[in-house]
Amino acid sequence: MTTTVTALSASKAGAPFETISLDRRDLRPDDVRIDIRYAGICHSDIHQVRDEWGAALFPITPGHEIIGTVAEVGADVRDHRVGDTVGVGCFVDSCLTCEACRDGEEQFCERGVVQTYSSRDYHGEVTYGGYSRQIVVRDHFVLKIPDGVDLAATTPLLCAGITTYAPLKRYGAGPGVKVGVIGMGGLGHVAVKIAAALGAEVSVLSRTDSKKADGLAFGAHAYHATEDAGVFDDLANHFDLLINTVGAGIPLGSFLGTLGRGGVMVNLGAPSEALSVPAFSLLTLRRAVAGSMVGGLAETQEMLDFCAEHGITATIEMISADQVDAYYDKVVSGDVRYRAVIDAETLRAPAA
Amino acid sequence: MTTTVTALSASKAGAPFETISLDRRDLRPDDVRIDIRYAGICHSDIHQVRDEWGAALFPITPGHEIIGTVAEVGADVRDHRVGDTVGVGCFVDSCLTCEACRDGEEQFCERGVVQTYSSRDYHGEVTYGGYSRQIVVRDHFVLKIPDGVDLAATTPLLCAGITTYAPLKRYGAGPGVKVGVIGMGGLGHVAVKIAAALGAEVSVLSRTDSKKADGLAFGAHAYHATEDAGVFDDLANHFDLLINTVGAGIPLGSFLGTLGRGGVMVNLGAPSEALSVPAFSLLTLRRAVAGSMVGGLAETQEMLDFCAEHGITATIEMISADQVDAYYDKVVSGDVRYRAVIDAETLRAPAA
Repeated sequence: MTTTVTALSASKAGAPFETISLDRRDLRPDDVRIDIRYAGICHSDIHQVRDEWGAALFPITPGHEIIGTVAEVGADVRDHRVGDTVGVGCFVDSCLTCEACRDGEEQFCERGVVQTYSSRDYHGEVTYGGYSRQIVVRDHFVLKIPDGVDLAATTPLLCAGITTYAPLKRYGAGPGVKVGVIGMGGLGHVAVKIAAALGAEVSVLSRTDSKKADGLAFGAHAYHATEDAGVFDDLANHFDLLINTVGAGIPLGSFLGTLGRGGVMVNLGAPSEALSVPAFSLLTLRRAVAGSMVGGLAETQEMLDFCAEHGITATIEMISADQVDAYYDKVVSGDVRYRAVIDAETLRAPAA
Repeated sequence: MTTTVTALSASKAGAPFETISLDRRDLRPDDVRIDIRYAGICHSDIHQVRDEWGAALFPITPGHEIIGTVAEVGADVRDHRVGDTVGVGCFVDSCLTCEACRDGEEQFCERGVVQTYSSRDYHGEVTYGGYSRQIVVRDHFVLKIPDGVDLAATTPLLCAGITTYAPLKRYGAGPGVKVGVIGMGGLGHVAVKIAAALGAEVSVLSRTDSKKADGLAFGAHAYHATEDAGVFDDLANHFDLLINTVGAGIPLGSFLGTLGRGGVMVNLGAPSEALSVPAFSLLTLRRAVAGSMVGGLAETQEMLDFCAEHGITATIEMISADQVDAYYDKVVSGDVRYRAVIDAETLRAPAA
């Protein structure tokens, strides 16, 4: 028994989206059915739909930034009620018993986390994401959206927010700490806002000056165009923490040189080629290069509450379902400011 | 006014050592004159004498692992007395006023630390190291050697000891923490001993089984030959901390795969080529790759005291001054166990 809902779907790598009918399962006792209101577009959706990481399952319905309204709850659900405004992020199940899960880092579940889409769940079913009118998700993986926030602009925080909040907190961003954000796109612009709200001294490191006014408006204290001669010399040994939101193709050694003693560069992107890290750069001021990948449920809830309290949302444009293909091309060409959210109401059932 | 002492010196890159007469300065008020008893040979001496890092100053007298007896002290010296047994490590001066120096990390002095040899000091003079009968060093940079230790075997700790102790402490090596030591040479064998004494669960990761008995005798709980098929699969996600003492040429991605959630690989070697770090390896369990470089004076003293308390020394062979050239070749061919110390008494004045 299933419920049929309207969704966007790509039939194979790089195919345009079609509007299809998708089956959502009947509720298990711990399930929550959510009527989706908004679904954010993340750059990783594009990698997956174009199968650039080589692991996508087709047909594919992407979307792991989701906000909607609870439509129905399973018999054992206590934390969510019909009518609640809730969110879903990058994953929808984990074992909840391994050390990572017990530590609140479900994303690193030893059994293997179930991604919100293009993943096979513990029941053998392929998952389909948020570019859809409805989704059914196990209660533990459903987040509470604080009252009063701009729902559409909050939607991207379910991925871009937690992806940047987690390393900023882990590496101590706060008053007196100099944070550099490399790249100011979907992730980067949220990183700037959150780091500034945490009280850190935030600098944007972007290739050109074109986003300078935005960066300062988002709360950055300084903005550096890295194409300018001398910028790496001027910033030598300066930062305590670099949040690298750029996937590939940047001179990593030059950026590492801007880290001070004990400084850490956290990489959030996942380029397929290996990072080229000069060993001397690490040794000379005991610097480090780290990775980070989203965050657990408790920390994601903490991030949502923090952003609500500080008035932080993503800076978005709202698009309709028929604009997604064109928007993907704009993302790849770097021509977006800064995130797009699909209005799920524009998802209409295909003509019979 | 200077004092003339006997020393080993290489006149140019790769030249054999000659016995020469070297001038040591008369004491400044904060200077300590040390009659050298032992000088350790570090692999970095070889890089410098062969100018493989491109920054050596010739003629060169290497040696930054030094133990000797105080022969004379300047008027303002309070912490050292004639007859004391003392040590000197990798550097002999720093500004003592910058933030790094105030934090006890003199090795990262913002003015630039003065290396024990092949460095230009703040007075414009080139420094000459421990392969010598005597050295003059500013008091702050002179360490106390605890009573009762094996002096010759303690000598290499002035570099190899602090280089491994500092990252082991910084990244929490202790009971319940799984530490892997990559490579078991001069640095690695000391890392194994110190990590075991700190209470960590220590594994050696060496290319072959040839040092297995030694590794277990040094305190390792496990020993893995990385040339064995399947070893990286068996150790997947296993370690909390990897101490990489191998300069270059290892499959970094495979080793990173042995780190568990939040694990850190610390690189102590300084290969000239960049490290190739797969970005996905960092992301998937928020792993990190860090560097570390010796340690400050206070921590070096702490290390010496810790090693004395736990009976830790390097495993050495004693050589005479005329054996240094041949020993260098043995180090490069990997044919040493595990460190050599020059008996300074074998340094004789050249025939007139």
